[in-house]
Amino acid sequence: MSSNTSIPGNWLQPERILAGGVAAIRQARKWSGAFASKPLQPGTGDTSFVPPAMPAPVGEAESSENWGFADTKFEVRADGHVWLTGGRYSLCGEPIPGLLPWVRSVMHPDITATNVHPYQFAPVVPAPMRNEAFLQAISEFLTSDQWSEDDHTRLRHGHGHTQEEMYKIKYAAGLPRVPDLVVWPTEEDHVVALVQAAAEHQVALIPFGGGTNVTDALRCNSAESRTIVSIDMRRMNRILSVDPVNRMAHIQAGAVGRHIMAQLAQYGLTMGHEPDSVEFSTLGGWVATHASGMKKNKYGNIEDIVLDVRVMTAKGLVTRTAVGPRESVGLDPRLWLFGSEGKLGIITSVTVKLFPLPEVQKYGSVLFKDFETGVAFMYDLAQAGNWPSSVRLMDNMQFQFGQALKHATTGWKVHKSKLEKAFVTQVQGFNPTEMTACTLVFEGTAREVEIQEELVYGIAKRHSGMVAGAENGARGYQLTYGIAYIRDFVMSHWVLAESFETSVPWSLLPAMVAGVKACLLRECKERGIPGLPFITARVTQVYETGAAVYFYFAFYYKGVENPTQVYHDIEDAAREEILRLGGSLSHHHGIGKLRQHFLPHILSGPGLQFAAAAKSALDPANIFACGNQSAPQAQG
Amino acid sequence: MSSNTSIPGNWLQPERILAGGVAAIRQARKWSGAFASKPLQPGTGDTSFVPPAMPAPVGEAESSENWGFADTKFEVRADGHVWLTGGRYSLCGEPIPGLLPWVRSVMHPDITATNVHPYQFAPVVPAPMRNEAFLQAISEFLTSDQWSEDDHTRLRHGHGHTQEEMYKIKYAAGLPRVPDLVVWPTEEDHVVALVQAAAEHQVALIPFGGGTNVTDALRCNSAESRTIVSIDMRRMNRILSVDPVNRMAHIQAGAVGRHIMAQLAQYGLTMGHEPDSVEFSTLGGWVATHASGMKKNKYGNIEDIVLDVRVMTAKGLVTRTAVGPRESVGLDPRLWLFGSEGKLGIITSVTVKLFPLPEVQKYGSVLFKDFETGVAFMYDLAQAGNWPSSVRLMDNMQFQFGQALKHATTGWKVHKSKLEKAFVTQVQGFNPTEMTACTLVFEGTAREVEIQEELVYGIAKRHSGMVAGAENGARGYQLTYGIAYIRDFVMSHWVLAESFETSVPWSLLPAMVAGVKACLLRECKERGIPGLPFITARVTQVYETGAAVYFYFAFYYKGVENPTQVYHDIEDAAREEILRLGGSLSHHHGIGKLRQHFLPHILSGPGLQFAAAAKSALDPANIFACGNQSAPQAQG
Repeated sequence: MSSNTSIPGNWLQPERILAGGVAAIRQARKWSGAFASKPLQPGTGDTSFVPPAMPAPVGEAESSENWGFADTKFEVRADGHVWLTGGRYSLCGEPIPGLLPWVRSVMHPDITATNVHPYQFAPVVPAPMRNEAFLQAISEFLTSDQWSEDDHTRLRHGHGHTQEEMYKIKYAAGLPRVPDLVVWPTEEDHVVALVQAAAEHQVALIPFGGGTNVTDALRCNSAESRTIVSIDMRRMNRILSVDPVNRMAHIQAGAVGRHIMAQLAQYGLTMGHEPDSVEFSTLGGWVATHASGMKKNKYGNIEDIVLDVRVMTAKGLVTRTAVGPRESVGLDPRLWLFGSEGKLGIITSVTVKLFPLPEVQKYGSVLFKDFETGVAFMYDLAQAGNWPSSVRLMDNMQFQFGQALKHATTGWKVHKSKLEKAFVTQVQGFNPTEMTACTLVFEGTAREVEIQEELVYGIAKRHSGMVAGAENGARGYQLTYGIAYIRDFVMSHWVLAESFETSVPWSLLPAMVAGVKACLLRECKERGIPGLPFITARVTQVYETGAAVYFYFAFYYKGVENPTQVYHDIEDAAREEILRLGGSLSHHHGIGKLRQHFLPHILSGPGLQFAAAAKSALDPANIFACGNQSAPQAQG
Repeated sequence: MSSNTSIPGNWLQPERILAGGVAAIRQARKWSGAFASKPLQPGTGDTSFVPPAMPAPVGEAESSENWGFADTKFEVRADGHVWLTGGRYSLCGEPIPGLLPWVRSVMHPDITATNVHPYQFAPVVPAPMRNEAFLQAISEFLTSDQWSEDDHTRLRHGHGHTQEEMYKIKYAAGLPRVPDLVVWPTEEDHVVALVQAAAEHQVALIPFGGGTNVTDALRCNSAESRTIVSIDMRRMNRILSVDPVNRMAHIQAGAVGRHIMAQLAQYGLTMGHEPDSVEFSTLGGWVATHASGMKKNKYGNIEDIVLDVRVMTAKGLVTRTAVGPRESVGLDPRLWLFGSEGKLGIITSVTVKLFPLPEVQKYGSVLFKDFETGVAFMYDLAQAGNWPSSVRLMDNMQFQFGQALKHATTGWKVHKSKLEKAFVTQVQGFNPTEMTACTLVFEGTAREVEIQEELVYGIAKRHSGMVAGAENGARGYQLTYGIAYIRDFVMSHWVLAESFETSVPWSLLPAMVAGVKACLLRECKERGIPGLPFITARVTQVYETGAAVYFYFAFYYKGVENPTQVYHDIEDAAREEILRLGGSLSHHHGIGKLRQHFLPHILSGPGLQFAAAAKSALDPANIFACGNQSAPQAQG
């Protein structure tokens, strides 16, 4: 089979794949459609092919001390405005004059271009604890470029992206314990041999995917007396086979989302899984964290997409001989890996469902007079079914934030004077400090999209929603990837920020959101946090029985003693409020170590013992020693 | 809240709920719709209500020696024709003159009304092995009507509905080991106390739901030296709460499908799970066997419908404090119960998603010239998405069988002379011995149904399908429940019959079906089975990546020595062929003991050890001693 192996550079950004890619992909779809008539003749069984390896990526270096690509960051330029460097995102290329003034106006008057908290990076890294016998053992099957004891490398493998971790590596003493060795397997055989060597030489293993978690899942146990080895899976990044007829792909677990998307798009296909971290997180990480994608309405959450998982455990390699579309085959180890967060083994490859890239991709947005009205719309849409690929409702604060992020030429101030704005706030009677926006992504055939639009806008009309066009909708989604860089930028301007999320039944949602916001405000007041905290919520996923809610919380930390601990304590208070008001411990971020002390709040003692007993039985020597989900009651 | 607690008797048949119920239910929907505006005000959190208990069912006695209700069976009447007794099903009330002649024509000339193999029931039942201390312990929390050592009762709790089990209890020496005691808990507390008493007094427990399995899942281990207690869950049959706003219900695990359907329908709701056994199987059983429903395209398989499971394990009661719409909360014991088949504990209650009953329910059917063409249609439909609630494709043998089941007034012979028939076989060129039928169920709003019909019939046209109307489609589904009674009828006429199923990727499907049919035919020939076997297949479920295929296989066993063993051996040969040709070990029947020896064919040794180690750790004393899934390599 012939195929074009070169992938245009800009396809490597999901934002571009999604926006520009679709038109170009129609041709590829026709091509892959040529398969469809072949297979249904008996005897033509195997319809899969091995795609050529991706060309080695260039210019994709990631930052060590900030989120994302090394060439991308927010910075204040000589013009006094904030810019996003580079050209990867739609936010790049023009000043964003409204950002700092707006943040200043809602948080603290001292948040200015020049009031900077400069950081020191990198911190001192603890010396590696070497296990010579293990090193000797792995040198028999790995080459010297497949392991490293380099300080900088080990540091990066010892943390994810919680505010506390990022603060510690830039503003504090660093991390008390990091992996002693980082290893890069390229084949499943390497993983098998690594686990065997770890068992033989008493080494602790922690798998590393994209390093994007926000749950302290990679934090090393300071009390661990064994050598800790980080197994960085990202060189196991190949799509091993694509079956366009049976719509499956077998992919190594270390493949990162943007590469999977780009390569599958060449064949007119997608696995449809787009978590906010899709640029950097890995397929194996998605399974281990029980991830959710922005377009789960069309493609499903990770558990709906995954057909099979191969995993190296302390018992050996757990594999299946065939992949059925759906099975009832007794106790199924595959199911246990969802949410396992590195405790049970190292996922080596995953077989996933594929979907044709949509013929049509269309954005949309609707404005509502306030958040409660928006939620009522979301509820009615949830009841109606036939949901667009993505539906998100931002509260007023987030709506304003989106306006503040506009470039000078399209920004809020320009917009303000326009007729449309006058219409929204005067004719419709919408209050700019109360109104909310719902952003939509429609995907499918032209007819499917047309039908969904009719349904969605019909329901919106019943709630006096104002259809606000595709451009605003597209902006909402395109901002997702660029916005991720803001947290590290504002940290340099004395603002500590983080997100956390939950899921909740519909009837409890409005009270839960209001309660959590009130709780955060109260906690900040009681602790004497300067200025006002930034608190905002977004309904990000709809289900029949409820929705997922995503919070951002930030405060100005200049003068606050031990700010990351304060943040942590306030977040814990908010989490208690979430649980009290009927929300879940996590919709998709997971537990890690950040939330493990809450497990006894949601699961009975026997439930905790059930999970702990399974871990002990399946990994009696605790080779997989990430230590996640160590709820107090489950220990000992 | 007021509600009408009386349920019309005919609502207790799913066939009636589905057919007649829908119109009557529109009123109920409006009523439940009154909730929808309430909840979205903060503070009105709990929107659930406790429905009144179902009135005690009358006239619902089940047969001890045959499938289903005691008042329903196929019999040959004085007119020489086959009738289905009673009035529960559409097959009842009129003679079915074509059945015996057709079966005779395709299988063996000696299959006649008078060539009967009379059975002896009940067989001798092994005396109970009493554990006095356990009896003493349970008498402290159960009343005397909550346990029994009656022979007949114990026998029924020692088997499901495999051909071998049914043959043994009617034509052979019975069962070598059955439960020594049957217990009927009515509350979760009883289950907790029963498990505690079992642990204290060394008793083996086997949960019993509907007793409808076809996997030998209830077969007792002859070597079990402890008292075996069957925990019959069917008095734990209450819907504990219904939340019409958040579309959830909390239901005791022993509730049977027809009661759940009937009671939820009063509120305009359904959980949408309709396995072929829905009249008799239980909610807990569905979870434990990882069940699939006929309408999974709209409502999902059981794992898609279940939100939470409460289970009593050897570690104690595993419970959750809240039910989120979707969560990532680490190792999740709930997931491990799917497919657990009684090994890990006793499921006490389940929280499920609810759906509004559809405004419109419409049947449809399409004829295709042959099976391969029908599969090509199914494949194209699978690729298009937006599937009707149910789509099934029967092969020609099953199509003919359906015609043979017609009443005298509507039967094949009458039909044959009609213009329509002439059109199908002459104008269209369809061959009556090759043509196949696809039956369809559309559910949703009028508009949704209209859109699906347009899509489906458009694809059918591309495959030269002939739209054959709603009546034929409705018949296909309505026959499902009545047909289940045929197996025991034909057993009395020297025909041994059973079904088995698999799932398979699309491209392998035609070759797999052809290969399995050829294998069955070959095996029968080699073993000198008299006449011709009855072999037929149906594609029952579509998925993006493949489909589920359901086989029926029967042979005339007069003169065959040890016919059930022969059947078993032939079925095993077919299963090997299925696996060889890329099919799965089971789509939804499960493993039990019937297929456990195949587990090493589909799962690597470490995978088997993984499951076995979990079982040992979670139930070290093997209290839950059903012994299912005891794959050879996993033992010891």
